[in-house]
Parts: sequence; structure tokens; C-alpha cells
Amino acid sequence: MTASQRLLSVRHLIKQLLLPKYVRTYYEGRTENVTFRENEDILDLNIHGEILKFPYVWLRDNCQCAECFHPTAKSRVVDWAKFNLDSKPKDVIKDENSLQVTWDDGHESRYKINWLKLRSFTDKHRKNYNDTIFKPTKKTWHGNNFQKILSKHEFSGIINDDKQLFKWIHDLSVYGVALIKNTPNKETALDSVVQKIGFPKKTHYGTNFIVQNVPNTSNVAYLNSNLQIHVDLPYYEYCPGVNMLHCLVQTSSRGGENLLSDGHYTAEYIKTYHPEQFKLLTDIDVEWSDIGTEQGNEFFKLHRAPVICLDKHGQIERINFSIPQRGSHFLGPIEVVKPWYKAHSLFFKLNMDFAAKFKTDAGDILVFDNIRLLHGRNQYEDKPNNVRKLIGAYVDWDEIYSRLRCLQLKYNHNDELV
Amino acid sequence: MTASQRLLSVRHLIKQLLLPKYVRTYYEGRTENVTFRENEDILDLNIHGEILKFPYVWLRDNCQCAECFHPTAKSRVVDWAKFNLDSKPKDVIKDENSLQVTWDDGHESRYKINWLKLRSFTDKHRKNYNDTIFKPTKKTWHGNNFQKILSKHEFSGIINDDKQLFKWIHDLSVYGVALIKNTPNKETALDSVVQKIGFPKKTHYGTNFIVQNVPNTSNVAYLNSNLQIHVDLPYYEYCPGVNMLHCLVQTSSRGGENLLSDGHYTAEYIKTYHPEQFKLLTDIDVEWSDIGTEQGNEFFKLHRAPVICLDKHGQIERINFSIPQRGSHFLGPIEVVKPWYKAHSLFFKLNMDFAAKFKTDAGDILVFDNIRLLHGRNQYEDKPNNVRKLIGAYVDWDEIYSRLRCLQLKYNHNDELV
Repeated sequence: MTASQRLLSVRHLIKQLLLPKYVRTYYEGRTENVTFRENEDILDLNIHGEILKFPYVWLRDNCQCAECFHPTAKSRVVDWAKFNLDSKPKDVIKDENSLQVTWDDGHESRYKINWLKLRSFTDKHRKNYNDTIFKPTKKTWHGNNFQKILSKHEFSGIINDDKQLFKWIHDLSVYGVALIKNTPNKETALDSVVQKIGFPKKTHYGTNFIVQNVPNTSNVAYLNSNLQIHVDLPYYEYCPGVNMLHCLVQTSSRGGENLLSDGHYTAEYIKTYHPEQFKLLTDIDVEWSDIGTEQGNEFFKLHRAPVICLDKHGQIERINFSIPQRGSHFLGPIEVVKPWYKAHSLFFKLNMDFAAKFKTDAGDILVFDNIRLLHGRNQYEDKPNNVRKLIGAYVDWDEIYSRLRCLQLKYNHNDELV
Repeated sequence: MTASQRLLSVRHLIKQLLLPKYVRTYYEGRTENVTFRENEDILDLNIHGEILKFPYVWLRDNCQCAECFHPTAKSRVVDWAKFNLDSKPKDVIKDENSLQVTWDDGHESRYKINWLKLRSFTDKHRKNYNDTIFKPTKKTWHGNNFQKILSKHEFSGIINDDKQLFKWIHDLSVYGVALIKNTPNKETALDSVVQKIGFPKKTHYGTNFIVQNVPNTSNVAYLNSNLQIHVDLPYYEYCPGVNMLHCLVQTSSRGGENLLSDGHYTAEYIKTYHPEQFKLLTDIDVEWSDIGTEQGNEFFKLHRAPVICLDKHGQIERINFSIPQRGSHFLGPIEVVKPWYKAHSLFFKLNMDFAAKFKTDAGDILVFDNIRLLHGRNQYEDKPNNVRKLIGAYVDWDEIYSRLRCLQLKYNHNDELV
């Protein structure tokens, strides 16, 4: 024990004698301290003047010792049948980097201060964690600004450089769209991009799908007529999160332009200027449906959800829209049928008005958020020596955000995150 | 024209002259008729004394002619930019089996009467469709009744007989659990069952997974200690719908029993007897998390959702529970920490109390709803000649309900469903 430690220890003892019995305060240094009270449930931690509060039960639950937390599985292994909700700290020691708690049953827990800060219950610390780790904040856009928000990424950069991979996924998550350029002219090139994230989402149309004109088709996307603005597969409860369309051959005829609209922008516009229609589009369930046979396998998908799905905090979590795949069973009361159709038409019209219009080149992979953006394509004509052809694949947001977080960790070296 | 048709035609003409101009009623037979009014939005159809109402806009939207509805894609191909929300019927003709509407723009639509009945806006017709086609109604159970509700299905029956396949999937969807017996002792046997539905759900643990004791694991499920009651992968937004566990080798030691609890039963019990805890368990988001590396691939999954997820109609749509995979970031306000932990402990304890306890045999595939049931396993000991081994796979409800509906159609031959 050094002289200064002895001094602190003596000051500590004096404090203990002077304070009422139910208050025990430990000082380590002048500005950093800890307060906890036996008849309360929360410990106060003073970190450079900022008081952060941590409930005892949460601290006990999140003990990081090997007995409570499995080191390789990175998982809590507390036996909950024996967990005491009323555990209280008996002794607490804090130094510059860590907090050590001895509980009333003798168990000892140690926490890094930075680890605690990141899990603090204040809005400021939570926002930091939410934005950097949980999910980047989305930014909505109008088609007029499409060229400004559309980021372009090199295929070879995404494959070979994790920083470029990170940048691409980050842009995709913020704007819901990001373009990959100079992709090799191979049907398997898209697979390499998917593998950089993880693996594709399979649907009843297969793992990859080819988009070209097929007259007697099981899906209207495989026609060369106008493909009205829509999301893919809204009849899936687990609707594919991201759509990747690799343009192998673009049509040289008139037409074939892509339309892309940010459904979140449109939804917020309707919320502001047409609140009654917003209510109908968020309240009334629609039965999205797809019935048919693909490569010998029959399918009969149904999913019920509004056009604009809100989570319980009122945030938009998903857009559903597809005229071909809206089922014929109307789910709301008969009185709202006409008003709902008006709201549906408004949503359609505004998305058409707000949509960006552009044409991808051969070698482009157009990547977009399928549960946020609506996409469409204008009519075109194939010629014998120019048959438009895309290869498509889906990847779910679970895998995309997972990869983004792993890459974020790689460049931030913050061990307290996990 | 027969004599009786002539008579009807004359009666029709007389009716037209006698009625006010805005009411035009067409009679076909004595008890079956149609009424529509020019200044209203809804057509009345009298089918054997039952009046069914159909809004004009809905009828026009669901015209089944080849110009409006693609016959092989079974999809609406109306160009919505040209759709008139205010179309009105100009003429209507009904016979025993069909309704023919001529619209004010000259377009003609024909509907089968049974097709219309199935899409009627009445509660009775909707319930019929919901129960038989959309999703069978779930029945909750307490562990004491487990042996009564647990249906047993032969592996060979499921593979070779679509009626037995239907029965198995139906039982699974109603009770959330159904057992397959006498599965061949091969690691690939499970794949044959998955293929009868469609395809497996891949996760970062792979397509199939092997459950056996692995001391330095990335997941606590791969240990032989008590595996506390939980759902798999709650950190997936698209959480695997159904868990299939093929028991290749069961332990002959003490222990190794499965625990299964119906989370819907427990949730409803808490709603009735502990409404405050129910509110906490449905209101407070939890951050479910899984961070690690599996076969060289890093993952960092986070999903935020309450323990009991309700849809916007207040119905339970998903249960999340896993002590190891509950993250350390608490998302609610600090004041609810202690009450939330109490509610969480109550949910845990009740599921343990209500759980069925049993041991599968080699050759069993235990199939259960992973977003409804909680499962666990008691501690066991491997021996050199008896190493417990399961093969697992997931399938999503999108594919399961789809297969159920296709099989339902096969045995009901009801063309008006689609």
C-alpha cells in the first residue's frame, strides 16, 4: 500500500464513521466516486463529474465473471432459478478503469468503467450506442435528390477491401440504395457480393432469380410490360430485406428505365399532409398474396399487414406495396373500402411523383432496401441481339446489419462493445 | 329465349319503369337478386336470402378478366395510373352461378358467385376463410396436458403420403409441437422432411446444426450443462419459425430430458393474473444479442423486441426469451428495471412450472414452433460409448403455412379460393 492509498483508506474510514449507517460512500481520487445505499436499488457512479446510475439487479445480472458469463459463447450462464432479484452490494471498490462489487452473498463482480459507460441509462450514451452500433440512422430522400444520395462503389473494392465493404453497407442502410459498378459480366458475380455479407435469402422463386421476359410466367416481374412501382414479395412475413439486381444486359430500346422511390419519404409526407390517409394506410391490414408453381413446387403465400407498418414506437418498420400481389380479400370493415382505396391511390401517385428515374448499365448491381423503397420499370422491347437480362438475389437485414457491426468493431477496436 | 326468360325480361322492364330512376333492380328468379344504386358505392347481392354487400371500387379492382388479371401469374395487372376509383355499374346480370357487371366505361367483369361469397365482408364468411385457409386457430396447452396434445407421426407417412403430411403440419400449427417417429438413423434424414415443406432457413450457425457437447463453444446450446428454457435465435428479426431436432443418439445417463412450455399459454396466464407484469413484458424492448465466430465467419446480431410481442390487434405474435442471449444494454427507463426483472423472473418461473418434461428416443424428430414455445434440456453426462447427438434445422412459417394451404387446396378442390 502506497502512502496515498493509505491516506485514501483513512479518509474512507472517517467518511464511514461520519455518514449515517445506510449511506456508505467510497472515494477513489477527488472527482471520481461511487455511492450506493442499502435501502435503495441503484448505485451512483461519478465518472469525471458525470453521475451515471446503475440498478443493483442489472449489475448482478450482468456480472462478467466466468461463472456468470461464458467467455467464448459470450453469453450469460447465470442459473435463473437461483438468481436473487434483491442482491445488494456489500462493498464497492472503484479505480480509474474498473468497478468491483462484492455482493451480500459474497459473490464478486468486476466491470470496466468504459463498459459501464456504454451501457449507461442516459439518453446521450444510448444514442451514441444506437447510432454507431445498433443501426445507423436512416435519411429519407426525394427523387429530385437521387443523384446526390446515390453512392457508387466499385465491385473490386467491395470484394477486396473491408473498408469499402463497410462504406457500401453503411450507405445502403442510411439511404436504402447504393450502386455497385463494373461488376464482371458473369452470372455468378452477384454471389461474390452476397458472400461478403453472408448468404442469400432463399424464397420459393429460388436463391438467385433471372429477370427477363417470359410470356407465360408465374410472376408479372417476368414480363416486358410496365412493371408498376412495388416492393418484392410483400406476401412474405419475412419479406426479403435487400434486393440486388445485377444488370447483365440492358435494353437498347426505348424504355426499361428503373423507377425508385423512398417509401419512408412518401409515408412521412402523407403523415404530414394527409393524416387521415396515413391512418388508413397504417391501420388497415391488407392480404398480400402469391399463388402458383415454380419449377414444380406449388406455393400459396399470404401475409397480412398494412401498406405502412409502424412499430410500437410509431416508427416505420416496413412498407408493403404491390398491385399484382395485393390479394382479393379485403380485411377492413366495408365502410372504409372506398376511403382506403383513395389512400392507396394517393400512396401510389405520390411514389410515382417522388420517384427517381434512371437506367442501369451492364455491369451495375442496383442494391436497395426492399422493405423501404418501391421500385418499378418502364416497358421495353427485346430484340434478337439485345435481350434484357438481370440476375437478382435477396439478403436479409439480419445478416447485413450483422456484417456492418462486425466491420464497425474491426475499425473501432472497442472491446467494451461486446 | 325461353318463355320463362321472356317473362322475367318483361317483369324486369316493368320494375324499371315503376322504380325511381336511381334505383335499378334486376331479378333472376324469385329469391336471388341484385340491387345497386347510382348514388351509392355498394352493390347488394341476395344469395338464397342472404344479402352480401360488395363495394363498386372493390369489384372493379378485382375484375377477373384477362385484361385485368393475369391468368398464369394469378395477379392483378390493372394499370393503377388509369384506375378510376369512381367506376359505377351500368348494367348487372346475375344467374345461378355468376354475376356480370357492365361498367359505366363499357368494361365488362364477370365473377363466380362462390368466389364472391368467399370474399364477402361479413364476419361469418371471413372466419370461415381465416380458419380454413389463412391460418388454423392455435390452441394453447399446459404441460399437464402435453401427452394429450402431442401428436405422433410416422416418418415414412410424412414422406410418402400428402394426407399424413397435411395432418402433421396442421397439428404443428395448432399446438406448436408435433413429433415424428421412426426416422432413419442418418444425418440426412431430416433434410427429407424439410424438403416436403420447402427448404430450410439458414442462419449464421449454418443450414443444419449438430447439437452435442463442445466445451469451447460459440453457443451455450453446445454444452452438456442445464440448458435453461429459451427460444432459439431471438436476436434474429426474422427468428426461425420452427425448430426440428432429430435425435440420433439419446443419452442413457440420468438427465437430458427435454422441457417444452407453451409461451402463449404462459402469456395469457400472466395477462389474466398479473396484468402489470404483462404490460412490462409486452411494452419494454429487450436487446437480444449474439456475437461470435462460427466456422470463420464473424457475426454480431442484435434485435430489439419485448419478451411477449403483440400485433396491433393485441394478439401474441412472437415470444422472445433466452437468458444467455439477452444483451447487457437495458432499453427501458431506469425506473422500470427492477419491476421488469421481476416480470421476467415470473415469466421464467411460470414457464418452468407449466413445462412438459419428457425424453425423446433415437429416431424421433421433435418439431416445435420456435416463436411460440420455450424449450430447454436438463444436464446430462456423455460416456465414451454414448455421446448424445442431435441434428437440427429450422424452417420458417412462411413456407410451412404455404405448404399447408397448397395441401388444403388439393383436398378441397375449391377453385374460388385463388
